[in-house]
Amino acid sequence: MQQLKDRIRKEGKVLPGNIIKVDGFLNHRVDTRLMADIADEFARFFDVANITMVLTAEASGIALATICAQKYNVPMVFAKKAKSDNIEGGLYQSEIFSYTYKKKVTQILSKEWLTSSDRVLIVDDFMANGEAVRGLCDLVSQAGAELVGIGIAVEKGFQGGGDRLRSMDLNYHALAIIESADENGIVFREDAEA
Amino acid sequence: MQQLKDRIRKEGKVLPGNIIKVDGFLNHRVDTRLMADIADEFARFFDVANITMVLTAEASGIALATICAQKYNVPMVFAKKAKSDNIEGGLYQSEIFSYTYKKKVTQILSKEWLTSSDRVLIVDDFMANGEAVRGLCDLVSQAGAELVGIGIAVEKGFQGGGDRLRSMDLNYHALAIIESADENGIVFREDAEA
Repeated sequence: MQQLKDRIRKEGKVLPGNIIKVDGFLNHRVDTRLMADIADEFARFFDVANITMVLTAEASGIALATICAQKYNVPMVFAKKAKSDNIEGGLYQSEIFSYTYKKKVTQILSKEWLTSSDRVLIVDDFMANGEAVRGLCDLVSQAGAELVGIGIAVEKGFQGGGDRLRSMDLNYHALAIIESADENGIVFREDAEA
Repeated sequence: MQQLKDRIRKEGKVLPGNIIKVDGFLNHRVDTRLMADIADEFARFFDVANITMVLTAEASGIALATICAQKYNVPMVFAKKAKSDNIEGGLYQSEIFSYTYKKKVTQILSKEWLTSSDRVLIVDDFMANGEAVRGLCDLVSQAGAELVGIGIAVEKGFQGGGDRLRSMDLNYHALAIIESADENGIVFREDAEA
């Protein structure tokens, strides 16, 4: 998606350790018009007329997922991070490793809001190692729901999460895949492969 | 706001300890159409044509704040919870007590995305003790920005956060104030006082 790549090139900052900051429009300050354009772009890849919900993970995916859900006319559901070891009943749970927090995190989702009759589009703003999305896929699987697709705005292509999903039999699309990011700038994987 | 009160009465669940669950439409599964109606209702109370941003706190406020920002044609910014004691530079910080986590939490906000020229509408989905909003007001104050107003969807009126804000010289509005919630049902404060 050219518009998204242009924004990343223009406003993204590369920090030491392959950290790419896109917090001026994606995940701290959010440009809702760009989110709407991303939602339209996802609609080219996924059968959004036939989903029953958009699913994301707390916290930064919520903004994009909300705009997507609004466009596709379905509810937005977000998996929460468990707040303690005492997790109440009636919840799906998945264990993921958070590279941000450098520890295991448990994603939880009420069984009330995801059932075997759901057709789910997973959406997230950013993917690196893909742990959050792996956890969300696991929740969908636990519910016996149908995974319609996985849409990611920005993928760090050199960290493996996206490649692993592409090697599986899933309808996975990332709109901007960053191949490398260093002092020389940001290089995207070819559009043809996106 | 009658529509919101009706939804709370119809779908809200009262749990022991004065816990009111509205997670079917507000803060776990999100009804984006209701969020849009709430955004329109806020626009009756606040001069949304003259704000430069909508500010909220991670995580559950993000969905409502995103729809508000989209309607008002401004960016949405969310304060993050600090992930460690090692907080990098260039950030505003406020310390709040999280009753959910039962510990102190530090809210952080990049100085890049909130400056003295900003006119800020704070939005959140839910207020109990009001710690999150107090922290957000503190961030606005640190930046020397103008606080245009504070809009809350659901206030737990019996927990003091809203009453404290109403006693201050602030443009504060909550669209549904729950006066009491127990086995006999949910009672709202009179609309005239809302």
